[in-house]
Amino acid sequence: MTRLQRLRSAITAPPRDGFAAAQQHLDSLTKPRGSLGRLEELAARLAVLRAGPPRVAQPVIFTFAADHGVVAEGVAAYPQVVTAQMVENFLRGGAAINVLARQAAARIVIADFGVASPLGPSDALVRRPVGPGTANMARGPAMTRAQAIEAIEQGARLAEEALDAGADLLATGEMGIGNSTAASAITAAVTGLPAEGVTGRGAGADDATLARKIATVRRALALNAPDPGDGLDVLAKVGGFEIGGLAGVILAGAARRVPVAIDGFISGAAALVAVLLAPDARHCLFAAHRSAEPGHAAVLKHLGLEPYLDLGLRLGEGTGAALFIHLARAAALVWSGMATFTSARVSDKA
Amino acid sequence: MTRLQRLRSAITAPPRDGFAAAQQHLDSLTKPRGSLGRLEELAARLAVLRAGPPRVAQPVIFTFAADHGVVAEGVAAYPQVVTAQMVENFLRGGAAINVLARQAAARIVIADFGVASPLGPSDALVRRPVGPGTANMARGPAMTRAQAIEAIEQGARLAEEALDAGADLLATGEMGIGNSTAASAITAAVTGLPAEGVTGRGAGADDATLARKIATVRRALALNAPDPGDGLDVLAKVGGFEIGGLAGVILAGAARRVPVAIDGFISGAAALVAVLLAPDARHCLFAAHRSAEPGHAAVLKHLGLEPYLDLGLRLGEGTGAALFIHLARAAALVWSGMATFTSARVSDKA
Repeated sequence: MTRLQRLRSAITAPPRDGFAAAQQHLDSLTKPRGSLGRLEELAARLAVLRAGPPRVAQPVIFTFAADHGVVAEGVAAYPQVVTAQMVENFLRGGAAINVLARQAAARIVIADFGVASPLGPSDALVRRPVGPGTANMARGPAMTRAQAIEAIEQGARLAEEALDAGADLLATGEMGIGNSTAASAITAAVTGLPAEGVTGRGAGADDATLARKIATVRRALALNAPDPGDGLDVLAKVGGFEIGGLAGVILAGAARRVPVAIDGFISGAAALVAVLLAPDARHCLFAAHRSAEPGHAAVLKHLGLEPYLDLGLRLGEGTGAALFIHLARAAALVWSGMATFTSARVSDKA
Repeated sequence: MTRLQRLRSAITAPPRDGFAAAQQHLDSLTKPRGSLGRLEELAARLAVLRAGPPRVAQPVIFTFAADHGVVAEGVAAYPQVVTAQMVENFLRGGAAINVLARQAAARIVIADFGVASPLGPSDALVRRPVGPGTANMARGPAMTRAQAIEAIEQGARLAEEALDAGADLLATGEMGIGNSTAASAITAAVTGLPAEGVTGRGAGADDATLARKIATVRRALALNAPDPGDGLDVLAKVGGFEIGGLAGVILAGAARRVPVAIDGFISGAAALVAVLLAPDARHCLFAAHRSAEPGHAAVLKHLGLEPYLDLGLRLGEGTGAALFIHLARAAALVWSGMATFTSARVSDKA
């Protein structure tokens, strides 16, 4: 069995009967039943996944970067060199994800999965390039099937290293000029929705760019005909190296029943690929937020996930997932830190 | 001038022209313009209020407790003694607000504004009882006008002490069996909406209790006829001592242009009273979350506030405000901690 086959076969659903016991514990705490709303649902899901008290002590954010050949079609608002420039910014600690990860006491793994422009020397950068950016999916497949497998396995390996070091929550993030075009193509391929329904402005495309972007997604799908039942085929035909890496992070988290916080639209596309490869991976997925990018709603609906935050974010990098960490930690602390009606001698409902 | 008159006259709107400069700063940071959504709006509001970089280093949560004579009408799901029992729980650190305040590195001021049942000795409890609970508003005014003023001024004094010690964000919270009935009556009085539109299940009223609660709100309004243009009259006729105290916190914050995070429905009723007393107080108000309690939507609409979180919370104590502190701090850190396009040498939009 290959590494990917082993991962896929290790992913199973947690026992459903854990929810009743989890809710019973939450109902014993000194608050009206259900009064913490989705924080209780979040705590229960975390507890069921872990088969024990939820714990968010060592969150790790995976911010994977790669370039996309499809930018040659004029689909992006920023020049391709910005991918490399932003990776340098991550490494210097000046990006939004750096600020928000520090606040959340989360470690960031910044990895190059295939940035086209040169990156300077850095000990902090994890170098796992699958290629110098993908090929242009409007002219042929974005990558080979072997590259798709490599991207996933490299991502999974990085997640496994973090898990071995004690990570108890994984979070996804990305950077890649053009990657919202890939995410739209993946979403259209998997959900069957038309390109115009799942393609948005990304980092700020104007009307003409948006029109080109929709036409490009449509052409890439018609040309490559990705098989909507085969996650590897979808990733290879219209995906991206960083998206494959994040699918690997999700599969590695799911295989160990560790929660994975999904950031926005591009991370959501990685989740679509992961769930095609191992449907029970969805039990480990937590949708951090609802992105302003229109295709994200289709991703969430397909995965059956309800986001926890709705702040109109559309930055990526893992920023929404970083904000979600506070909520996940709150849920874990409520679970373990509150008194019970009995211990606090508080009268329960009349 | 009385203390309250001085407070009211000190409250003015911050200059509107601060918003353009704030957005210019946010647009200089290394992210697509507007891509942090409501986190940017939040940062801009904080910056305009402070006329400088936002800062959330010393948040203080005011959790005020008091009892309500209206519980004699059978409107509450829990017995009145739970108010005192929960105050004891706060003092021992076992309630949800203790857990969430610790996580947010916020100090809590736990104050007795009029708890009916005896409270044990405690150095941590701030004792400002205006009376042994309010009178039953279904039989007459909940309190005298002098008591309404006293509650507000005591709350303002506690907030001023915190501000003098460096507090840079105030947050409201409360505990009081029966206080969602008072909040419903305040909301109906101020907005003109019918009782049944703004009265919900509070901590978990069953159908019969909810019907009694609606009838009680209706009777209290008919009997007392609070003047919807006079915040003191509304508070005195159908309010609560802790609600008055929180209105005082809001006024004190507004007078110094310090942000005040409003928790849920009962805190929102305090904000309605505060804004009646000083309309420009609304510039300092930040609606932490959208409560599951149906009357809260009417409060938010009346105040013109859009909540930041929507998690179905209906606990009070300040729990939603505590969760919001993470978002406010994130906004402040983004403002001050990110590199600019120039400093990071990242290419701006093509």
